Amino acid sequence: MHKIAMLGTGLIGRFYTMSLLNFRGKDEIKVACAANAEDAKNFADEFGIPRWTDDMAAAIRDPEIDTVIIGIPNHLHKKAALLAAEAGKAVLCTKPLATSGPEALEMLEAVEKAGVFHGYLEDLVYTPKTLKALDAANKGALGKVLWARSRETHGGPHSDWFWNKELSGGGAIVDMGCHCIEIARSFIGKDNRPLEVTCWADTQVHPIDAEDHAVGLVRYDSGAIGQFEVSWTFRGGMDLRDEVSGTEGTVWLNHWLRTGFEMFTNVGQGGYVAEKAEGDTGWLFPVGDEIGGLGYVEMFLDMFNSMDAGKAPMETFYDGYIVNTIIDACYKAAETKKWEPVEIQNWRGGSAAGGADTALKDYDAEHYLIKEERMPNGNLKIILKNKQTGEISQVIKE
Amino acid sequence: MHKIAMLGTGLIGRFYTMSLLNFRGKDEIKVACAANAEDAKNFADEFGIPRWTDDMAAAIRDPEIDTVIIGIPNHLHKKAALLAAEAGKAVLCTKPLATSGPEALEMLEAVEKAGVFHGYLEDLVYTPKTLKALDAANKGALGKVLWARSRETHGGPHSDWFWNKELSGGGAIVDMGCHCIEIARSFIGKDNRPLEVTCWADTQVHPIDAEDHAVGLVRYDSGAIGQFEVSWTFRGGMDLRDEVSGTEGTVWLNHWLRTGFEMFTNVGQGGYVAEKAEGDTGWLFPVGDEIGGLGYVEMFLDMFNSMDAGKAPMETFYDGYIVNTIIDACYKAAETKKWEPVEIQNWRGGSAAGGADTALKDYDAEHYLIKEERMPNGNLKIILKNKQTGEISQVIKE
Amino acid sequence: MHKIAMLGTGLIGRFYTMSLLNFRGKDEIKVACAANAEDAKNFADEFGIPRWTDDMAAAIRDPEIDTVIIGIPNHLHKKAALLAAEAGKAVLCTKPLATSGPEALEMLEAVEKAGVFHGYLEDLVYTPKTLKALDAANKGALGKVLWARSRETHGGPHSDWFWNKELSGGGAIVDMGCHCIEIARSFIGKDNRPLEVTCWADTQVHPIDAEDHAVGLVRYDSGAIGQFEVSWTFRGGMDLRDEVSGTEGTVWLNHWLRTGFEMFTNVGQGGYVAEKAEGDTGWLFPVGDEIGGLGYVEMFLDMFNSMDAGKAPMETFYDGYIVNTIIDACYKAAETKKWEPVEIQNWRGGSAAGGADTALKDYDAEHYLIKEERMPNGNLKIILKNKQTGEISQVIKE
Amino acid sequence: MHKIAMLGTGLIGRFYTMSLLNFRGKDEIKVACAANAEDAKNFADEFGIPRWTDDMAAAIRDPEIDTVIIGIPNHLHKKAALLAAEAGKAVLCTKPLATSGPEALEMLEAVEKAGVFHGYLEDLVYTPKTLKALDAANKGALGKVLWARSRETHGGPHSDWFWNKELSGGGAIVDMGCHCIEIARSFIGKDNRPLEVTCWADTQVHPIDAEDHAVGLVRYDSGAIGQFEVSWTFRGGMDLRDEVSGTEGTVWLNHWLRTGFEMFTNVGQGGYVAEKAEGDTGWLFPVGDEIGGLGYVEMFLDMFNSMDAGKAPMETFYDGYIVNTIIDACYKAAETKKWEPVEIQNWRGGSAAGGADTALKDYDAEHYLIKEERMPNGNLKIILKNKQTGEISQVIKE
Repeated sequence: MHKIAMLGTGLIGRFYTMSLLNFRGKDEIKVACAANAEDAKNFADEFGIPRWTDDMAAAIRDPEIDTVIIGIPNHLHKKAALLAAEAGKAVLCTKPLATSGPEALEMLEAVEKAGVFHGYLEDLVYTPKTLKALDAANKGALGKVLWARSRETHGGPHSDWFWNKELSGGGAIVDMGCHCIEIARSFIGKDNRPLEVTCWADTQVHPIDAEDHAVGLVRYDSGAIGQFEVSWTFRGGMDLRDEVSGTEGTVWLNHWLRTGFEMFTNVGQGGYVAEKAEGDTGWLFPVGDEIGGLGYVEMFLDMFNSMDAGKAPMETFYDGYIVNTIIDACYKAAETKKWEPVEIQNWRGGSAAGGADTALKDYDAEHYLIKEERMPNGNLKIILKNKQTGEISQVIKE
Repeated sequence: MHKIAMLGTGLIGRFYTMSLLNFRGKDEIKVACAANAEDAKNFADEFGIPRWTDDMAAAIRDPEIDTVIIGIPNHLHKKAALLAAEAGKAVLCTKPLATSGPEALEMLEAVEKAGVFHGYLEDLVYTPKTLKALDAANKGALGKVLWARSRETHGGPHSDWFWNKELSGGGAIVDMGCHCIEIARSFIGKDNRPLEVTCWADTQVHPIDAEDHAVGLVRYDSGAIGQFEVSWTFRGGMDLRDEVSGTEGTVWLNHWLRTGFEMFTNVGQGGYVAEKAEGDTGWLFPVGDEIGGLGYVEMFLDMFNSMDAGKAPMETFYDGYIVNTIIDACYKAAETKKWEPVEIQNWRGGSAAGGADTALKDYDAEHYLIKEERMPNGNLKIILKNKQTGEISQVIKE
Repeated sequence: MHKIAMLGTGLIGRFYTMSLLNFRGKDEIKVACAANAEDAKNFADEFGIPRWTDDMAAAIRDPEIDTVIIGIPNHLHKKAALLAAEAGKAVLCTKPLATSGPEALEMLEAVEKAGVFHGYLEDLVYTPKTLKALDAANKGALGKVLWARSRETHGGPHSDWFWNKELSGGGAIVDMGCHCIEIARSFIGKDNRPLEVTCWADTQVHPIDAEDHAVGLVRYDSGAIGQFEVSWTFRGGMDLRDEVSGTEGTVWLNHWLRTGFEMFTNVGQGGYVAEKAEGDTGWLFPVGDEIGGLGYVEMFLDMFNSMDAGKAPMETFYDGYIVNTIIDACYKAAETKKWEPVEIQNWRGGSAAGGADTALKDYDAEHYLIKEERMPNGNLKIILKNKQTGEISQVIKE
Repeated sequence: MHKIAMLGTGLIGRFYTMSLLNFRGKDEIKVACAANAEDAKNFADEFGIPRWTDDMAAAIRDPEIDTVIIGIPNHLHKKAALLAAEAGKAVLCTKPLATSGPEALEMLEAVEKAGVFHGYLEDLVYTPKTLKALDAANKGALGKVLWARSRETHGGPHSDWFWNKELSGGGAIVDMGCHCIEIARSFIGKDNRPLEVTCWADTQVHPIDAEDHAVGLVRYDSGAIGQFEVSWTFRGGMDLRDEVSGTEGTVWLNHWLRTGFEMFTNVGQGGYVAEKAEGDTGWLFPVGDEIGGLGYVEMFLDMFNSMDAGKAPMETFYDGYIVNTIIDACYKAAETKKWEPVEIQNWRGGSAAGGADTALKDYDAEHYLIKEERMPNGNLKIILKNKQTGEISQVIKE
């Protein structure tokens, strides 16, 4: 049973708080902290949190508190994390971990040096769908993972500060690319080193300095590709999908717009439909359990259970650091128009031989099998490669 | 914080226990009870439940226990509920409430007379999708509800006793019809009296006495129709869908086979895919959060929160009684091949004037509007009815 | 190569004409005929048809014409068909064939007596999806068909006369039930006699005499059930779906609202979206090939190819007669509130032993297999029935 | 009415022939030509084609023939096209037009110099869904197009020669990238110059020299991005999807695996399920009308109608040349690991000022509107930018 200081009372703080207070849970938020005292007070009142403050250091050092949750703007994460490390408190930080790789590294070193529990609140790898798909992938259902696409696009963030590059560290890549990169990395394997990236980023629609649309490819040591697509220009709601291809299988996850809940209404229902929905009449696609479906429930379960068990959670500051480092390479690649290396300072994963190793399947003594397919007339067509000559040929079986 | 006796350690007891023990919750299961002592012991060991027994009365009367959860075969519900009422314990009973309407009525009267808290564990009205759709319907998004279809079909129940009509009280109707009937009733309105039913039921595939496939229509006082489709003969997994039509809108819910999780695997993943999945290679449709998606989480939340708040939960024994009474009428109608009345002893809802009242919309002083539609050539076609003569005509606007 | 008289220039005549004139085809429409001469002229002009008239008999008897297509209101079908038979012309009649079974029988007898080619233009059994699914079913992919649901619902017909029971012969059942009944019958087997029906029908919304919503169940000799759902009260477009369950498989067809074409637009596109679409902004679901997707292309292909080959098409006036007879039974059942027999005068199909024959699968010498299922913990649970005692038991394999 | 020489009797020749012979059409194939005389004869016999040959020049020069369809391996396209131009015949060439941009340019110049009709058989821009979506886009339903993703992935091509880089000109990019590039270009605008590309290509699975998986981004003059994803490593069938995002809307097209046809079968159906389907039991996703759904029907309709009307079809050799040129840039970029320019020799489109022009929407006299969104508590949150200071702020409306 933990006593928590919640730093930040915006949308993310709200989602975190709703996740923690729901479900007749044991853990308790004891202090709410916001930059603005009135916001903190209103939030505390709304959720029955006993204390509130606008003094972040005081909230962190509060003697009753054992866990600090950082849900504040990106440029303030480092300060909060360092204070928490100093105070010896467990610290859970929202995504992205920092506004850059070096900043993230500083945070990682601080919490590790202080020996405090640290969790990276990358909720989207914790959605029940994602966890189950990762489990299937780990059990071999997909064979060797070759490609993972993760996409998050909508009409732009909720909070004003996120539109300001100085405060957020960037645009759509920092905002949602962090999710997509870590989702792809989770499927491709955390032990699999991200080597280099190519990236397109542009400001297509909004009067802002940061990119509002970007696509990037991250190449891993095994030859696998992680692909992210992020946008603040998307129309129609929030598009939140993952697709993974492996040598033996495929996974498609749709987290938001097509989840088995479809509604048409001619009159609307007087309010909120789903996060980032557009319009409230016509065909709508609400989400049954938004909090659970975004991964908050399973994420906090892992965080607190891991804390109690004295082990690291699935996502730590180290993961956040890797993600920030990949993002840094993306911004560079978007500038230089070249593939840029991912410059990780302290890689802790494997050093795979790397490179795509194509699997040679024997068809018979002389041939490798390239592929077989059932044709419209019912025949089976088999494509072969001669082991000696390399010549490609086909055999048809009726 | 409640101390619970779990009666039953089969699949349903397992789901209930997983729901309760998950999420770092406050409420605790203190006794596990099964017909077979070894089953009880194994179950208690698996879930860390401190005590176990094969003596149901002892489990119920255990002084530490304040809440009894009934998750045992249908024909034993009454005995357990009466014991719980006698012992003054809160009692939560799985679905169906009883094997017949009269039996359900006896249970209802017992708990009401004893003044104990009673909840009907009809989980499928508690799925996050269903709750959100009901909320939208209640806010008017669908207008007046005209028709609600609820469908649950799969390859048959998990437990041997359920295939035995003497122990279960029937076949697919008792097993899943209870869900479907209550889901439709929830959309159509609990205050809206179910009047009569027609029903087809047959044993199409299995060597059993009970029906393994049935379809029924329940007509309500407002003119709305609740339609249920239940089967133990379905191939392809578990088909769990609801569809609701109203004068202003439509809702489609898919709870199991198409929820935004699609996987192809050539090799399988070595085990369980989803409840009642068939096969483990090819295209598979796992469910992210099975426990949550079946409504268990929200159901227990409502039960225990209501208990703490001293109010009735959304589903009580009264609802279970209504459902059993409708089921009785269905079995009768399937026999007599006629529409049969639903014979409720103590109707507590409204006595609506009843009958479908068609809404007359004025088009102009002389005409009612029947409908308008955009044609392929872009014209708008309007169908009218003359208020005096009743003559139907059309107007075309370019 | 055929020369056609097109009777009717409303929406159905338009769809038929577009089907025939598309695709650089050989067959030609030589006369357009409408009740109103101006309509006929405009239609002929629009589609480059050489002649037009408001004299139906003249159009039919036109010496150049060898084929008459009937696309006029239901109450006029008989007159047109009898004229065509008398003139010795091939006759293709839109759905429903007639306004009642006896009227349909009269038409059937007329064309058979005259020895002319007759086709029943039941387009929805000719959609490419339906044809492929029927082919799969015929090849055994579904095993024995147990149940077939066909659903067609939208906001009501295009033409004024269809809202008038005197002219159309009824409401939603006559309008769309005819499709649904024949689709289900096609999957269940045309040789399989429809025995009896139960039906609910009501006027829930519109100020009309006919039913605007109905659900019916048709029981066939094999024990299979055909289920139709028709409505003129549906919101959200046109819901056109079929579902078939057999002992070995399942088919789900969605013909209109979810066909892999999804569009969101904030501004609309200035006109037609899809037949019976509601609204033109927000999430829309256009249909790629409406004409093909509704079966018109394959239907006329079968009609003219069969004509040339001197054989009967897939759908003849006999099929139309069966459908009208089932509809008559449905109207009667909706009145009497009992299952009513389907009174076919000249049944040409099989006289199956009938009744559901449950298949007994041996598990071992002493037991029948009822079912097996993979449980969440990975175990395989097997439900058995003792051949001697009938006792039901279970075995669990790890 | 045209008389056609069909060059090539493999899968593509088969699809083309089925498209042309279906639908009681006027146009006729008079000669079938294959590299192997026996193949040509068998093909002619199967489809009732009067003549056959293995002499390509003879087939092209056949005096009865007015139209040559090229459906042979890529490296032979040029020879066939040049012969057809020389013979003054209309020429329709399958995709890709050539094995490289310069080769395509040579073909384009030959047909233009000869003044013969030339069509590029890029079928996938002609699917009914694509045509309708393009029409909506052209009418403004999507606003300004910002991004178009086109994806085609499956288990690899049918024919042996396509696995041989010398004969095909490359791997998955040449095979399917040509489709994807032209689909994206069609949505982004054919007048919109493709400027530069980045591309990842690898041989991940098969023992071949060519790439079996690739992803590329094509940047257009307007700032829009065309994204292609192609693979011969995909498991689960053929994934054929397009997604388009614009400032006002979104389009999602699924052409193959999710088109409203879903089937589960425990026993299979003894043969072909759909092009490139994997397996024939379990959940299957057949396609109703494969020929139509791949665009062949509408493509030939446009080709022959345009020929008759004396105008260019939607897709000409010029389009094929642009596509080949983009592909060349992709291969180069995959090598150099840099964005590479698209080197078009004779650009015929517009010279847009280029660059993304962000649209400034006024909120009030002092502010631009960045975005507005409905929050979970029902409030409307509005993000603004001060016109003078550039400061970003938010306003909340209840």
